[in-house]
Amino acid sequence: MPIADHILSELRAVLGDRLSTGESDRTLHGASETFHSAPPPDAVAWPLTTEEVSAVLKICNAHGVPVIGWGTGTSLEGHALAVRGGLVLDMMRMDRVLDIRPADLLAVVQPGVTREALNTELRATGLMFPVDPGANASLGGMASTRASGTTAVRYGTMRQNVLGLEAVLADGTIIRTGSRAAKSSAGYDLTALLVGSEGTLGIITELTLRLHGQPEDVAAAVCAFPTLEDAVTCVAQTMQMGVPMARIEFMDALGMRAVNLHLGSNYPEQPHLMVEFNGAPEAVKRDAELFGAIAEEHHGAGFAWATSLEERNRLWAARHASYYAALKLRPGATGISTDICVPMSELPAAVAAAAADMHASGLIGDVVGHVGDGNFHVLMLLEPGNQAEIAIAKGVAERMAHRALAVGGTISGEHGIGVGKRGLMEAQHGPAWAVMGTIKRALDPNNIMNPGKMVPDMN
Amino acid sequence: MPIADHILSELRAVLGDRLSTGESDRTLHGASETFHSAPPPDAVAWPLTTEEVSAVLKICNAHGVPVIGWGTGTSLEGHALAVRGGLVLDMMRMDRVLDIRPADLLAVVQPGVTREALNTELRATGLMFPVDPGANASLGGMASTRASGTTAVRYGTMRQNVLGLEAVLADGTIIRTGSRAAKSSAGYDLTALLVGSEGTLGIITELTLRLHGQPEDVAAAVCAFPTLEDAVTCVAQTMQMGVPMARIEFMDALGMRAVNLHLGSNYPEQPHLMVEFNGAPEAVKRDAELFGAIAEEHHGAGFAWATSLEERNRLWAARHASYYAALKLRPGATGISTDICVPMSELPAAVAAAAADMHASGLIGDVVGHVGDGNFHVLMLLEPGNQAEIAIAKGVAERMAHRALAVGGTISGEHGIGVGKRGLMEAQHGPAWAVMGTIKRALDPNNIMNPGKMVPDMN
Repeated sequence: MPIADHILSELRAVLGDRLSTGESDRTLHGASETFHSAPPPDAVAWPLTTEEVSAVLKICNAHGVPVIGWGTGTSLEGHALAVRGGLVLDMMRMDRVLDIRPADLLAVVQPGVTREALNTELRATGLMFPVDPGANASLGGMASTRASGTTAVRYGTMRQNVLGLEAVLADGTIIRTGSRAAKSSAGYDLTALLVGSEGTLGIITELTLRLHGQPEDVAAAVCAFPTLEDAVTCVAQTMQMGVPMARIEFMDALGMRAVNLHLGSNYPEQPHLMVEFNGAPEAVKRDAELFGAIAEEHHGAGFAWATSLEERNRLWAARHASYYAALKLRPGATGISTDICVPMSELPAAVAAAAADMHASGLIGDVVGHVGDGNFHVLMLLEPGNQAEIAIAKGVAERMAHRALAVGGTISGEHGIGVGKRGLMEAQHGPAWAVMGTIKRALDPNNIMNPGKMVPDMN
Repeated sequence: MPIADHILSELRAVLGDRLSTGESDRTLHGASETFHSAPPPDAVAWPLTTEEVSAVLKICNAHGVPVIGWGTGTSLEGHALAVRGGLVLDMMRMDRVLDIRPADLLAVVQPGVTREALNTELRATGLMFPVDPGANASLGGMASTRASGTTAVRYGTMRQNVLGLEAVLADGTIIRTGSRAAKSSAGYDLTALLVGSEGTLGIITELTLRLHGQPEDVAAAVCAFPTLEDAVTCVAQTMQMGVPMARIEFMDALGMRAVNLHLGSNYPEQPHLMVEFNGAPEAVKRDAELFGAIAEEHHGAGFAWATSLEERNRLWAARHASYYAALKLRPGATGISTDICVPMSELPAAVAAAAADMHASGLIGDVVGHVGDGNFHVLMLLEPGNQAEIAIAKGVAERMAHRALAVGGTISGEHGIGVGKRGLMEAQHGPAWAVMGTIKRALDPNNIMNPGKMVPDMN
């Protein structure tokens, strides 16, 4: 049911020409990076202020119009698909860095600031915002999905790096959570409740973020291993020994082949680890030596060090390109990226089982991962619209998730739930899934905030 | 209104002789470490299993009987006072360490395990649970109050160190939150919602805790400063430079005098910092030199290093004894410890203002703090029952809290809300305080979980 004209008129009174029902705007804001799909939203709005967001939500709440937040559209589980129609709020025009306080190691930003834009602004301060999911995502979107990425092993995910939020709830109430202090013991942790809630509880309109000093010294390296098991066991042992890795990433042989195809590089087409060390020069040297010794035990070879910024950028570009690179393994294909996270001792078996399952299923794809956290992805390449292949891939993904749960892991390390993982929520959370629904119902009784996602069906 | 006999009979059917209405049991479980007071609870229970907790909550929920969790009784804000009567659940007989998984850097414990008991069990593994609020508190209580302490500056608070929980909600539902993986992006962060909820949402029956490697090398030192401002400015600069302190604690001149009186030590009676460095030997050396240089700039002198375990234990015993030591400054007195946390750049002014206010108010007391987090306490010494003094002290505490809020800080860094800080919740959270109440009402509609605390009045 499209949004009635009188409701659009009310919205237009708030937003003027920053409300669109044009087909191209709707189509752009109904797209997904993956095979997940839904009809486009009924309208798109570009608010400029928190007060506008509040006014829009009041109108939508009064009329039961779904509201879906939108950042850069780079989510991989269809989080922002308007599965029940409604209004997409594109937050990308609220893109100001409001305050940088180097002495307090924090920044205050609007949700449409991207992580790269923030880091560009921070360059002169000697500080950085390290959370890096690969895509140049918006910080509001990263908070909504509890994003992490390659550096989480050292600096934490959005959970650890959001100190406070301003958000607008379904009824238009504007709240502030958290504080600018490093810690607080004053009440329910509403910041943590909103981070990762995927727009189902409110729209984030401001973030207070924890900053970190740029490391004095950085060294990075790639290292090839004869087998997947060697590489992943090396990771488990490195983490168990407490080597303070800044990044420790796994890519399998096919992943390296994809990178070579995509970037014209000539890495050996074997399982690799890509690692980074941050700190004082002597610490970096020591950590690198420690890791080198562990890697050697596991038949790691061909260490290629990248110490200059340029070489390091090239190395991490290879890792970050892996999603788009993999698409070259099967031209024209769509990717479906699974995402699980397991306790470290379970990682070697989990990676091996996932790879074996994918190969046995006859699909082409690769395995990459933020393995220092026990988090990895199997990226499968599917012919667009081939329902049989999609069904096979979903089977692989579901079995991965169930194996993760069986060993105390989680169905999503960082990609979130969206529409792709909702069917697994009860398996992971049991009665706690209904509790999530109770909280949602209490804060959004008309179920307008990104309905049809995250919690059990309400209506 | 005491608990009716037929309800007690129902409870006795679950608990047998682990239910008491005896006066001494009730008095023991109605006490507080501070001047906060309330009549004792109507009954005390000692459950042994999660299922018993669930059965008890079902009975209490059906009859509207308040249920208050109890650990070691060491909270400083009267969290566990039965302000509306009811049943205290003493969790200290659920005291088993259920699982230690060194390879996954985690332990699973029941809520009645104390932090010292856990660390004793961990000794042989080379791992530790670092969160240390001073008291040998129960881990369930520490999670409920989001405890932190001297090591939070390096290892985080309970927020960062609880990976998952089992908890029983008001209606007896048993839920599990979180996972054993290092991170997760699968749904609302119910772990973070329960941590710090002070027993108002449920009773914690099991905790999965993050462990850390025991540092290879440790060095600690005390250092005296001519003025409070010198010492605190040294802290702010140390943190801003990114020196990875393991602990950095402040004690004022009167605090050092109290320690000398209590322990027979002979520290100079001047403002001090007590610091600790953890890591590889070369890192410890480098960090200590960096700190030493900053301290010297701020007129720090008389560095006394403690490198042996014995010397270090003596040093930290002095810090941890500060609460009991301070009581010696005024024999027979009760302490009231305020607790605020501010952004680092605001710390010197906040500490100076708090000390000046206390002195101007004519009260005796000292200033100590986990200043690396921007967190500090003013401990005021009051004649028991002297209402005029209590009123003056409350005034000092309230002005501290409002000054913290004015600069983006929080009314509680680590002691929590209890009965002592509830009156300040609206000032800190504004409309978000009502949102906390909405969540509470949704999860505990009969308001049986530690009623009269944390959220706005419900009934």
